Amino acid sequence: RINPDRLWDSLMEMAKIGPGIAGGNNRQTLTDADGEGRTLFKQWCEAAGCEMGLDEIGNMFAYRPGTDADALPVYMGSHLDTQPTGGKYDGVLGVLGGLEVIRSMNDLGIKTKHPIVLVNWTNEEGTRFAPAMLASGVFAGKHDLDWTYDRVDAEGKRFGDELERIGWKGDETVGDRKMHAMFELHIEQGPILEAEGKDIGVVTHGQGLRWIECTVTGKDSHTGSTPMHMRKNAGRGLAQITELVHEIAMKHQPGAVGAIGHVDVYPNSRNVIPGKVVFTVDFRSHLPEKLHAMEAELYERAPGLCEALGVRFESKVTGQFEPPAFDEACVGAVRGAAERLGYSHMDIISGAGHDACWINDVAPTAMIMCPCVDGLSHNEAEEISKDWAAAGTDVLLHAVLETAEV
Amino acid sequence: RINPDRLWDSLMEMAKIGPGIAGGNNRQTLTDADGEGRTLFKQWCEAAGCEMGLDEIGNMFAYRPGTDADALPVYMGSHLDTQPTGGKYDGVLGVLGGLEVIRSMNDLGIKTKHPIVLVNWTNEEGTRFAPAMLASGVFAGKHDLDWTYDRVDAEGKRFGDELERIGWKGDETVGDRKMHAMFELHIEQGPILEAEGKDIGVVTHGQGLRWIECTVTGKDSHTGSTPMHMRKNAGRGLAQITELVHEIAMKHQPGAVGAIGHVDVYPNSRNVIPGKVVFTVDFRSHLPEKLHAMEAELYERAPGLCEALGVRFESKVTGQFEPPAFDEACVGAVRGAAERLGYSHMDIISGAGHDACWINDVAPTAMIMCPCVDGLSHNEAEEISKDWAAAGTDVLLHAVLETAEV
Ligand SMILES: NC(=O)NCCC(=O)O
Ligand SMILES: NC(=O)NCCC(=O)O
Repeated sequence: RINPDRLWDSLMEMAKIGPGIAGGNNRQTLTDADGEGRTLFKQWCEAAGCEMGLDEIGNMFAYRPGTDADALPVYMGSHLDTQPTGGKYDGVLGVLGGLEVIRSMNDLGIKTKHPIVLVNWTNEEGTRFAPAMLASGVFAGKHDLDWTYDRVDAEGKRFGDELERIGWKGDETVGDRKMHAMFELHIEQGPILEAEGKDIGVVTHGQGLRWIECTVTGKDSHTGSTPMHMRKNAGRGLAQITELVHEIAMKHQPGAVGAIGHVDVYPNSRNVIPGKVVFTVDFRSHLPEKLHAMEAELYERAPGLCEALGVRFESKVTGQFEPPAFDEACVGAVRGAAERLGYSHMDIISGAGHDACWINDVAPTAMIMCPCVDGLSHNEAEEISKDWAAAGTDVLLHAVLETAEV
Repeated sequence: RINPDRLWDSLMEMAKIGPGIAGGNNRQTLTDADGEGRTLFKQWCEAAGCEMGLDEIGNMFAYRPGTDADALPVYMGSHLDTQPTGGKYDGVLGVLGGLEVIRSMNDLGIKTKHPIVLVNWTNEEGTRFAPAMLASGVFAGKHDLDWTYDRVDAEGKRFGDELERIGWKGDETVGDRKMHAMFELHIEQGPILEAEGKDIGVVTHGQGLRWIECTVTGKDSHTGSTPMHMRKNAGRGLAQITELVHEIAMKHQPGAVGAIGHVDVYPNSRNVIPGKVVFTVDFRSHLPEKLHAMEAELYERAPGLCEALGVRFESKVTGQFEPPAFDEACVGAVRGAAERLGYSHMDIISGAGHDACWINDVAPTAMIMCPCVDGLSHNEAEEISKDWAAAGTDVLLHAVLETAEV
């Protein structure tokens, strides 16, 4: 078993870097705080006897040798970057849980046949530089490296420049590494495990995703002096599509979700009828046919709704992936570990996207989830218990040991 | 008749101060550009033989003596401040049209019994410092002067400090002046006159207004990992209330309008279900019973809609006035002038709020409207023709002359 107090202390120590304004963290990718967090993580890994590798996109790989130099390593990890108003555990638990696994192996003098590698993926959150899961996506061959360097943040700063500025651009070619397997421990970010009273979620699938950025164009005009019948109110397009998205997702229950989270109204003035609204629909399902059906129904019905309102509908896909099904052997290792350790567990589908979803395309992969209070995440009030963190990390230890062959 | 070319030249000259980014103006109240515009206006007024008065809130009063020193002055004017992306005519036409009236009277050697006063009201737009029509509201006793000084802009700068900074705070007590009558020439800011092919709108009434700031509170959570039945999506509250506001306004046709122009979604992230949406409903009617019925129906139905969605509805009124009915004699003077001059005209209700709406409470008041292209206003592309400007100013001249007694 791992050492819960040491794990918790490391989580709290890391949380001091890039503090938020309400008890959480603002350690966005490629900021000074991200650089500081990386330095601390590297120190910890080296103190635990690992050698740190660094690739051209800033992914960090802490290496613990195995007994068979030819065996491919077993990977574990997640991300240390946070949302602007993020919690202390989203991503961080998977990295520092992995560190605790290595520390515990050292304590117990455990040697494995396969080397172990602990990874910190760059820019999982995607808030500063869209899209999310950016560097694991490059690793899995989903994005081009140069395209990634050219991503810009809201201030116009380039990803590539910021990576160099904080001093974490390495030489290693991205994606050159081969993996025997990869495990990611992560908080659920949803309410299911807590509601069901389970310690461990055995993640069998992830959801596929479509981010559809919609633009409804009407005509901005004075709310007081434009007669009702002469209006082209883009806000009504948003209203009707908000309800349409909900209706479509409900039609595909269970196993599908959908909502609009991001909305920009133009010119956004109290006495001006909205002339343009830009918003992003987020549809997800672990079943490809449901995902495709939801997307198709939006394209089929939204333009007609808008036409009836005298406004124009346009859309483009700004994020997409198909539902990943995790590797059966790796998933079995997670389930078996939870079972042996006596933790209550259930199979679960990851609602959120994770680095593991991309890596699953290039290596046998699985995920372990632990509950979080009220399902709250992407919020500074995100909270977990020390017991939950310890249980997830115990399962990570045992799944990795089984896969890396003691 | 006034001199259309001189009027147009002055409009274009003023538009050089605080230029916008797309051919219009950004001459927001109490900025350096506002100060520059005031200086130019004062020079023009003094060159036309007027003496400039200035009150404690920066309202400017250019005085042209009458033949009877005891007669109350006839006022005319509007405002020189603009929206951040405003046009060249909204407000400015009423001020520089008034200047052209004085210049024409000088050219023609016309003397009036009543003195003439041309006024530039401070902060009509209300974008930088809410609410709109601020200084005319203080003049009419609607707002307290100290409360007004304490209004802050988005950067936290105080109205009172900014007024002193640009050097346009006077000594005269606000609202001490008594008026024989007041006339405001303004562009329609709506599409009716152009659609009806009329040169002149004889404004008989204004609309009353309710700005109702609504807050819908749900719970922000991850769009991917929160099951549909566990959501508290504040965005759906916005959607249903957007449609409710439209439905309520349509029920009171003709003679009522309503829409939501300002919306802030929190946290406004693509993959987070909105936990809070703040938006402002703008209801207007020239009929008090319709205005009150619309407001009452919103309060009656919105909380129930939200309750059914598992979200909370709260509201507060952030702007309100009752419908003004302009003075019959002043309105008659406008209609008679249009008739005598041979301009096509129609009675019209002002959809927008204007300084004249407040002044109407303390003096006999009327408004003259001229068309604007496509009804477009609060937009840098706002446009009028020289002929329209000239027709409106001709009518202003004749209505003022009749009222001031030649
Ligand atoms: N874990 C997580 O929130 N990833 C961001 C991508 C997503 O929206 O699922
Ligand atoms: N004229 C004008 O746009 N005034 C601002 C107040 C309103 O919304 O009517």
